[in-house]
Amino acid sequence: MEDAYELLKRIKDKKPLVHHLTNWVTVYDCANITRAIGALPVMAHAEEEAAEMQSIASALVLNIGTLTNKFISNMILAGKKANELKHPVILDAVGVGATEMRTNKAIEILNNVKVDIIKGNVSEIAKLAGADAKTKGVEAQAINEDPIEVAKKLAKERNATVVITGKEDVITNGIETYIVKNGHEMMSSIVGTGCMATSVIASFAAIDENRPKAAAAALVSFGIAGELAARNARGPASFKDAFYDELYNLDEAIVNNMIKIEKR
Amino acid sequence: MEDAYELLKRIKDKKPLVHHLTNWVTVYDCANITRAIGALPVMAHAEEEAAEMQSIASALVLNIGTLTNKFISNMILAGKKANELKHPVILDAVGVGATEMRTNKAIEILNNVKVDIIKGNVSEIAKLAGADAKTKGVEAQAINEDPIEVAKKLAKERNATVVITGKEDVITNGIETYIVKNGHEMMSSIVGTGCMATSVIASFAAIDENRPKAAAAALVSFGIAGELAARNARGPASFKDAFYDELYNLDEAIVNNMIKIEKR
Amino acid sequence: MEDAYELLKRIKDKKPLVHHLTNWVTVYDCANITRAIGALPVMAHAEEEAAEMQSIASALVLNIGTLTNKFISNMILAGKKANELKHPVILDAVGVGATEMRTNKAIEILNNVKVDIIKGNVSEIAKLAGADAKTKGVEAQAINEDPIEVAKKLAKERNATVVITGKEDVITNGIETYIVKNGHEMMSSIVGTGCMATSVIASFAAIDENRPKAAAAALVSFGIAGELAARNARGPASFKDAFYDELYNLDEAIVNNMIKIEKR
Repeated sequence: MEDAYELLKRIKDKKPLVHHLTNWVTVYDCANITRAIGALPVMAHAEEEAAEMQSIASALVLNIGTLTNKFISNMILAGKKANELKHPVILDAVGVGATEMRTNKAIEILNNVKVDIIKGNVSEIAKLAGADAKTKGVEAQAINEDPIEVAKKLAKERNATVVITGKEDVITNGIETYIVKNGHEMMSSIVGTGCMATSVIASFAAIDENRPKAAAAALVSFGIAGELAARNARGPASFKDAFYDELYNLDEAIVNNMIKIEKR
Repeated sequence: MEDAYELLKRIKDKKPLVHHLTNWVTVYDCANITRAIGALPVMAHAEEEAAEMQSIASALVLNIGTLTNKFISNMILAGKKANELKHPVILDAVGVGATEMRTNKAIEILNNVKVDIIKGNVSEIAKLAGADAKTKGVEAQAINEDPIEVAKKLAKERNATVVITGKEDVITNGIETYIVKNGHEMMSSIVGTGCMATSVIASFAAIDENRPKAAAAALVSFGIAGELAARNARGPASFKDAFYDELYNLDEAIVNNMIKIEKR
Repeated sequence: MEDAYELLKRIKDKKPLVHHLTNWVTVYDCANITRAIGALPVMAHAEEEAAEMQSIASALVLNIGTLTNKFISNMILAGKKANELKHPVILDAVGVGATEMRTNKAIEILNNVKVDIIKGNVSEIAKLAGADAKTKGVEAQAINEDPIEVAKKLAKERNATVVITGKEDVITNGIETYIVKNGHEMMSSIVGTGCMATSVIASFAAIDENRPKAAAAALVSFGIAGELAARNARGPASFKDAFYDELYNLDEAIVNNMIKIEKR
């Protein structure tokens, strides 16, 4: 991963449009983090325009955080259009394992759309991989299995790249596996970190077809910004402000000096 | 109220899940303030999962700020489940007295769900208590009655704890009454202060069954954070950031030194 | 424009209620910026109350950023009530030129509601004026026509004041034209700047019947706050916080010293 910064630079040059059908709790942060990394966000969830907006975009985020049946069916419309145009589709499986609806609807999306990157916390991904996992609302709960094996299993089953975010992030397509060790515990003191990570992954996937590499470079950038932001933070709000500013200002020297990634 | 800090500490230890069916204007702040105080937020408003998500939570916030008929009927589903499981239910009566719909729907909730804590500004609560009050959008307007008497009347009628937030907060179950004098005028310079207060009250109610005490301890903590944040604020945004950081960092010495509460 | 500050002062004195039917991505910023400039925000989008809430307000913002058919029909209900009561109506044409739906629905609003101020970026306004313009999601794309002529054409066609925001803002009713040169490029580093500008324009329109003057004074204030905020910003988040604080603190000397406006 010598080229994490090179990908970031390519985002800033190309300014890809990243279409989101996402939850209403963190939507504003998803939009802003997309802008901070150098891409352009757009959110168009209506049945009448979800697919058309996809056609002028370069990637699609599907985030089920505040799902309804209607919202999910519109996600599938946008997803099918993205598949047709070969735009990368990223699913954030928010709250899978907390309610039947979330688990079933995530599976419905996976059965109807070719999802390129499936992302969640450890219990969300374990649940999608068929384990007996529970999620506490949108908060990860410990699982009995090895996270890397769980991710690999789901990756093979769905022919996708799977991302588990946590203290260490796991990224795998079932063959290549990256462990990203950047990040800081303050990142879990604010709401929406996971959603924002998804938007950043989508921004990287929009400019590089190697899904595991794009996701890993995204989480390296995200984690480094978190580490820098934590240096002077006095609490969650000053941390979050600094996090945005640091992500916006990442440069080649910083990324190359701070990157902590392992390939397995 | 020697134990305001003890309650706060219990939230941080237990991390109760606080389920919100709340408005889309301030939803992100409700989620973040819940996290800042040490609890975990979740928002699941769909008919198909509102009750199921409640079943794994410890408290329920119903906030009618951007109500629709459908949203209210889903609130009632979640509320009935909360009642069944004896989870505390907190209603934030946003905009009651501004439109017929808000007044009628708040009453519909109260008639169908046993609400443990009814919270609003002075004109919202007065309207629910049957007074001839008007609310300017979501902004309190002066009333002719004594706020404490209005709160007591509603508390007795609905067998609930009633909270009126304002320069001084009133908390009463009709028998015990607390007046919380913590707080700062800068808290009214930002949007969503009332909604955030409700999330914090719910977090305290999730870990202590004494409703008036839980609400009072919540508003003491909230108000102290406001006072501390105002010290260096240059305007509403720097105030809000500092407010989050101060709430997150509250410790026993600060709470015990700054608490301003009166029991009547 | 000697009286830009005088208008701002009048907002702070009267605290007009500005009703928004707006998008869910930036709704919180719209509410907060309305409060920061000195007015009061309210958001009531339900069919059953949109018109009634309008009846106690002083201006109406219609922002189609996350439109659905239902949302648009409720906008028209609120708009007709605003027309009846002679409240100024401001349309923010977010994403017109990106999808058929957005273009058609903006026109449907214009055909059913007397819109006093039509606001957008250069490609959104050009599309409404009948030019062959494309918008990249919600991001302006260059047009072939002269922006001032495009704005004048639409202003005459719709008997409205038209505002194009950008590096320089154009405000025209087809006869009088203002060019506002205040602002800073950091304003385009955050999401929602355009939406927030609309809320500020509505706050000014609520207290002065001269639409071009109100819109110009609003954008002068908005732009000056951006220039001040950029002085010490380290990135988008510290910029945004400073922007709010500076807008909140604008005084007569600052406005009179920094105003950069041209009347044509």
